[in-house]
Amino acid sequence: MVTLPKNPATGEAHPLAVLVQPGVVPLDLVIPLQVFGPWPAYVSESLGGLKTPYRLDLVGPGTAVGDLLQVGNVQPLSRLADAQTIVVPGTSDPTAPPDPATVEALLVASKRGARILSICTGAFTVAATGLLDGRRATTHWQWAPELRARYPRVTVVDRELYIDEGQIVTSAGVLAGTDLCLHVLRTDHGQYVANTLARYLVSPPHREGGQAQYSSERPERRSELSQTTDWILDHLGEQLTVERVAAQAHVSVRTLSRRFRSTFGVSVMEWVARQRVSRAREFLETTDRTIADIAHACGFGSVESLRVHFMAQTMTSPSRYRSTFG
Amino acid sequence: MVTLPKNPATGEAHPLAVLVQPGVVPLDLVIPLQVFGPWPAYVSESLGGLKTPYRLDLVGPGTAVGDLLQVGNVQPLSRLADAQTIVVPGTSDPTAPPDPATVEALLVASKRGARILSICTGAFTVAATGLLDGRRATTHWQWAPELRARYPRVTVVDRELYIDEGQIVTSAGVLAGTDLCLHVLRTDHGQYVANTLARYLVSPPHREGGQAQYSSERPERRSELSQTTDWILDHLGEQLTVERVAAQAHVSVRTLSRRFRSTFGVSVMEWVARQRVSRAREFLETTDRTIADIAHACGFGSVESLRVHFMAQTMTSPSRYRSTFG
Repeated sequence: MVTLPKNPATGEAHPLAVLVQPGVVPLDLVIPLQVFGPWPAYVSESLGGLKTPYRLDLVGPGTAVGDLLQVGNVQPLSRLADAQTIVVPGTSDPTAPPDPATVEALLVASKRGARILSICTGAFTVAATGLLDGRRATTHWQWAPELRARYPRVTVVDRELYIDEGQIVTSAGVLAGTDLCLHVLRTDHGQYVANTLARYLVSPPHREGGQAQYSSERPERRSELSQTTDWILDHLGEQLTVERVAAQAHVSVRTLSRRFRSTFGVSVMEWVARQRVSRAREFLETTDRTIADIAHACGFGSVESLRVHFMAQTMTSPSRYRSTFG
Repeated sequence: MVTLPKNPATGEAHPLAVLVQPGVVPLDLVIPLQVFGPWPAYVSESLGGLKTPYRLDLVGPGTAVGDLLQVGNVQPLSRLADAQTIVVPGTSDPTAPPDPATVEALLVASKRGARILSICTGAFTVAATGLLDGRRATTHWQWAPELRARYPRVTVVDRELYIDEGQIVTSAGVLAGTDLCLHVLRTDHGQYVANTLARYLVSPPHREGGQAQYSSERPERRSELSQTTDWILDHLGEQLTVERVAAQAHVSVRTLSRRFRSTFGVSVMEWVARQRVSRAREFLETTDRTIADIAHACGFGSVESLRVHFMAQTMTSPSRYRSTFG
C-alpha cells in the first residue's frame, strides 16, 4: 500500500548546515535538528530502513543557545562551503546587525546553488544578503513590519506559515519552523516520509489557516490620532462611516483619510474593520456569546459580514478560531 | 477588554526545574525552556509588563542534549528540593533504567507537594517512582504499549495530548509538550497569558483530536496468525465475518477468537476494523479518491460506518484527517 522512497539505503547524505548566530532562539535551532538530524530507530524501521538522508552540522559564529544551552561542536563558517542546504534559525533581537562574515558566506553559498531555509526572524539575516530582494518572504508576525521597513524591496507576507521561493524558503514564527522543515522533507523525500516524521513529532504535517490566526495587533501604537482611535474603539458596535468619524475629529474626510493612511497604512474603514475583527477575536476567546451576538456587538451588520472580514484577516472562520483559542 | 492577570509585577517567581537525563530528546527539553523561561520583551509588553512568573533551572544528572548541544549550567539533583514544579522531558531510550537517585529525588519532591510534568517518554521516569500507580497517564504513542507492559498499575492512555491528574500531568509525544506547557500556563495564569505565549510560538493553544490521529499501528507485529492476517489484509474490501475468517484459517470460531484476543488484545472484528481504518488513512493521505469510494474499498458498508469507526480510532473525521495529512 505504502510507497516508500526509492533506494532508501543508497545515495550520498545531503550536507545540511544549521547556522548558530548569537542570540539564537532555542526552539528555532532545535526543530531542524529533530527533523533533519538522526531519526529514532522505529522511524527508520517504518520507512523500510531509511535513516535520515541529511548530514547535519552546526555552524558558528555563535555557541550559546539562550542562557542555559551551548553548542558542543560548532563548525567554522567555512563549513558552509560544503552545504547543499543551510538553515538560518531566528535570533531574539533581529534588529542587531548580522555578522558581515556570515552574510557574505550565505551569499557565496547561495550563488553556488545552496538552498537557504530561514525560520522565524532568521529572515532578517537572509534579507541582509540582498537575496530576498524582489522575492516574497515571511518572518514572525511580530517582526514582519520591521522586516518590511528595513528591506522595502522584499515582499514581506505575514499570513502564511512558510513561503517557498524555490532556492529560498522562509518560515513564520518559532513553531512554523516545524511546518517549514516538514515541507522541505516532503519536497525532498515525499509525503509518506514527511508524514512519518510528523507522526513521530506529534505535529500536524499540514496546518490550516497560516500564521494570520496567531498574530495580534493589539495594542495599536499611540499616535496623533489617539483621541480619534479611542473614540472609534468606544463606538465600534455602532454604525460608523468616514464622515461620522471625520466630524467627530473636527477635520475633513480628506485630512482624516490622509492621516490614517500615513499612520496605519490603511484607510479609515479598513482600520475600523481590523479593530472589529480584533474585538470579535477577544469575544470568541473569552466569552460564550453566540457568533450572531458577537457580530452585532462588534458593529458588523450581519454574521456573514463578520465571517468575510474575519476570514480575510485571520484566514480562519470565527467558529474554528473559537475552537482553537476559546 | 482584556483581563490581565492580577498583580503582574508582584509575587515570588515560581521555582521550576527541568530535569536533564542522559539521552534527553532536544525538543522535549527546549519546549519548557521557551514557555516557562524568559519571555521576549513584546510578550511582556502585551501582558501589561508581566515577565515570566517562573524561575527556571536545569537540573542534572545529564549534560549532553543529543550529539550537538550541551547544558551550560546544570544544577545538581539536590536543587529539586526547592522546585515547586518539575518538568521531566523524554529520553530517546525509555527502556534504559532511570538513575535511582533521580527517581528518589522525584519521589521526595512529590511527597513534599511539588507538581510533576512529564513530556513524551519522560513518563517512564515518573512511572518508576510508583507515583503513577492507580492513575491515568500518557506518553508518546509509539511507547504506550511498552509503558503499559512495564507498569501495569498505571492506566496508560494513548489518545490524548496530555492527562492532567492534578499534581502530576503527563503529555504525549514530543510537540505535545507544547500543549502540556500551555495547559499548565493556562491553569496557573489564565487563558489570556497562555494564548499570548501560544501566539508568540505560533502554536495552537488548544489542538483538537488528541494524539490518536498521529499514531500509526502499521506494520503489525508478526505472529503465528500471520497467514490469517495476511489473508484478511488481502480481502479487507470484502464482507468479512468471524465465521468466514475462521473457515479460511481451518480453525473454529472459538479458537480464532482466542488467538486474536491473546495476540492483539482485541476481537477478530475489532482487529479487522482497525486495519480498515488504517487503510482508509492511507487512501486519504495518498489519493484523491472520494470518501464514499474509500469507504467501499476498505470494506465499510457505508460512509457513515467509515466515519464512526474512523472517529473512534483517530478522534477526528475522515475529511479533517485528509486536510491535515493528505
